[in-house]
Amino acid sequence: MLVIGENINASNKSVAEAIANRDREFLEGLARAQAEAGADFIDVNTGAGQGSVEDEIASMEWLVEIIQAATDKPLAIDSDVPHIIEAALRKYRGERLIINSVTAEPERLASIGTLAAEHQAWLVALAMGAEGIPKSVEQRLAACEQIMTYLSRLGMEAGQVLFDPLVLPISVDSSQGLVTLKTIEQIKSRYPAARTVMGLSNISYGLPNRKVINRAFLVMAAHAGLDAAILDPLDAKAMSFVKAADMLTGKDPFCKGYIRAYRKGAIVD
Amino acid sequence: MLVIGENINASNKSVAEAIANRDREFLEGLARAQAEAGADFIDVNTGAGQGSVEDEIASMEWLVEIIQAATDKPLAIDSDVPHIIEAALRKYRGERLIINSVTAEPERLASIGTLAAEHQAWLVALAMGAEGIPKSVEQRLAACEQIMTYLSRLGMEAGQVLFDPLVLPISVDSSQGLVTLKTIEQIKSRYPAARTVMGLSNISYGLPNRKVINRAFLVMAAHAGLDAAILDPLDAKAMSFVKAADMLTGKDPFCKGYIRAYRKGAIVD
Repeated sequence: MLVIGENINASNKSVAEAIANRDREFLEGLARAQAEAGADFIDVNTGAGQGSVEDEIASMEWLVEIIQAATDKPLAIDSDVPHIIEAALRKYRGERLIINSVTAEPERLASIGTLAAEHQAWLVALAMGAEGIPKSVEQRLAACEQIMTYLSRLGMEAGQVLFDPLVLPISVDSSQGLVTLKTIEQIKSRYPAARTVMGLSNISYGLPNRKVINRAFLVMAAHAGLDAAILDPLDAKAMSFVKAADMLTGKDPFCKGYIRAYRKGAIVD
Repeated sequence: MLVIGENINASNKSVAEAIANRDREFLEGLARAQAEAGADFIDVNTGAGQGSVEDEIASMEWLVEIIQAATDKPLAIDSDVPHIIEAALRKYRGERLIINSVTAEPERLASIGTLAAEHQAWLVALAMGAEGIPKSVEQRLAACEQIMTYLSRLGMEAGQVLFDPLVLPISVDSSQGLVTLKTIEQIKSRYPAARTVMGLSNISYGLPNRKVINRAFLVMAAHAGLDAAILDPLDAKAMSFVKAADMLTGKDPFCKGYIRAYRKGAIVD
């Protein structure tokens, strides 16, 4: 499973302050620590609605510069504002890139989809339209189909798309775990070349001991066909379950990845 | 998910000694602790090949007497020797009962299957014949079909059968996690009224930090359709994942079971 390290996100107060204060050392450390812990991509999120768009553009440019100087891991540019994504693209020199994210809304597909197509980026596509997260599998798949149709016309291939099945809290609706898992299975069945990606924490919203729930959901999603997860790679237990899940789903021949992680002390109980 | 507490098993040296010494207090304590930790059934295994059949019969009679005096949880009689199962049945007064286990071998189906049919017990049916654990899904399903055909003729219903898909170590063959998971899915599809059951520990044989692997496999199996697990209910982390898995697969309306377990301090990270 691909791991997209989520830690450089301005919704985290210490990260927001570090960005505002241009605290290069703190943010470089966060990038390096995630890379060392096994992140395949480093997500970069400068927040939304905190300051002016000009400020955010300046922050994104600065952040992309310093993060790619600190690690050779590719970045995931986490914004739904085209100007901010463009700011990141101006500064980014890596070959591989994720843009995170677009929805089925035509104006977003036109702007962000076109940016992804032009830069041959991978694109996270949320299985929703303007109405928010749909409750049913069918509605989510309908959004995926709109997205795939639009992106195909822009020349993008399924292999560039990371569909996010989306997650609603299980505390609100007991069926939502299965809705997300079935959406993953259906996406993998309909678009075999496309990937699936998911953030974990929404599932456990409003419940205690959320990490247990998040880890169990990660493992189930791996079985359903999840290809990538947006998570905290410094959570050693979560990363241990990623390695175990890869092994159990036949993605780790001879258990080499698991045993290598164990020898580094990275498999914890 | 139904939990069959595995701790009273003479392959564990301290249990074997307690049985040999008729250490009633130790074994009663083990039964009560498992019941309090959430076991739905208490497995009772007096070992095999340690002493004479007469000794084992006497041990099983004594053990069934004292365990059912210590807890009102139903028992799983864990033996493949008809005389020993009969000894347990002579002493057992509970309504619900599991006999663990039979295979597709006709002589075992004739003896143990008949005992289960006569006592209206649930029967664990291993998806294998005389040749040992098959490597493929198809061979395991063929064994299940032979078993179901035979037990139907004895008047047993699918609802009395707990199919064990069987588990081979992932360290020996990277595909074996998926083989077991697909076998579970296929059994649930072919025999919707039947249940599935599994012991966990074989999957991680030969690998380090086995509990991480076992827990991840338990959660995946729950997603594949596992109805019951044979495990150590005193392993609080494993039980936490059982509760999380029930919730995530839609089996815990309003998260009541999870929250109740949390309030008892039984959800641990």
